[in-house]
Amino acid sequence: MITFFEYNWQVRDEWFDWCTLLTPDELLKDRKGGVGNILYTLFHIVDVEYSWIRAIQGKEDIVFSFADYHTLEEVKSLSDTLRSEIAVGLKTDLEELKEELIHVPWDEDEYTKDEILHHIIAHEIHHIGQLSVWARELDHSPVSANFIGRRLKSVGDY
Amino acid sequence: MITFFEYNWQVRDEWFDWCTLLTPDELLKDRKGGVGNILYTLFHIVDVEYSWIRAIQGKEDIVFSFADYHTLEEVKSLSDTLRSEIAVGLKTDLEELKEELIHVPWDEDEYTKDEILHHIIAHEIHHIGQLSVWARELDHSPVSANFIGRRLKSVGDY
Repeated sequence: MITFFEYNWQVRDEWFDWCTLLTPDELLKDRKGGVGNILYTLFHIVDVEYSWIRAIQGKEDIVFSFADYHTLEEVKSLSDTLRSEIAVGLKTDLEELKEELIHVPWDEDEYTKDEILHHIIAHEIHHIGQLSVWARELDHSPVSANFIGRRLKSVGDY
Repeated sequence: MITFFEYNWQVRDEWFDWCTLLTPDELLKDRKGGVGNILYTLFHIVDVEYSWIRAIQGKEDIVFSFADYHTLEEVKSLSDTLRSEIAVGLKTDLEELKEELIHVPWDEDEYTKDEILHHIIAHEIHHIGQLSVWARELDHSPVSANFIGRRLKSVGDY
């Protein structure tokens, strides 16, 4: 499981680099599917991961508004900040009490910690798949989604 | 890890159902990104999963040609057949000798079994993300990608 976080975080950073090819208008332009534009997709990935991780840590949700993070630099900086916070406890979060039921303020149902960790991982990969289509529509090559052949930076190094 | 296979297989079947909303022409129409059309995406997911699983089982690769599976029914039937074969040994494949190095005929590099299993999982989720954009471009709602809130059919029941 932790390897999937390492994969997602590395691919995410490659997409942040890729985004520097685009103008601010292209990053925010309305597109069909997903959450509707490139920058908001990255913001949404960061926001959702952080909210769920705080929930499984028993911490109160912190709500971020995209209106406050409207540039590539701001979203990248938010991602870096929240990720270093997540990285500290992640190994423990992943290994302990997998079947513990978690209640979150934005959903009526309860889910196990293990289910939530799977959800965070699949959520990011799914949205990155959407970015790859939009990239081709912009006549750019997308970031590689290959898991194999990557040297993954360890969670402990974030 | 096995839960991700259960998730992918269930989502895949929901996309096969979703595809019945489309005409054969829409399923095969050229689209930007990914492997270029909806039906070939599903074929490619099935084909890639099977090839890598055979490789980690030490079996020779079997090459399938999309030209022979050009209808929704044929791709779905291929998926069902190969998946029941994969399901039999999957639990053992996932648990044993994770660090074993695997050589495959289509790649110069060698990868560990564990790396390959992560690759298969991320590969399917990524391509499904692409389908979700194409779905919206066709003015259809995509299949939900949520991991949480699903009752997953066990690998043993395939």
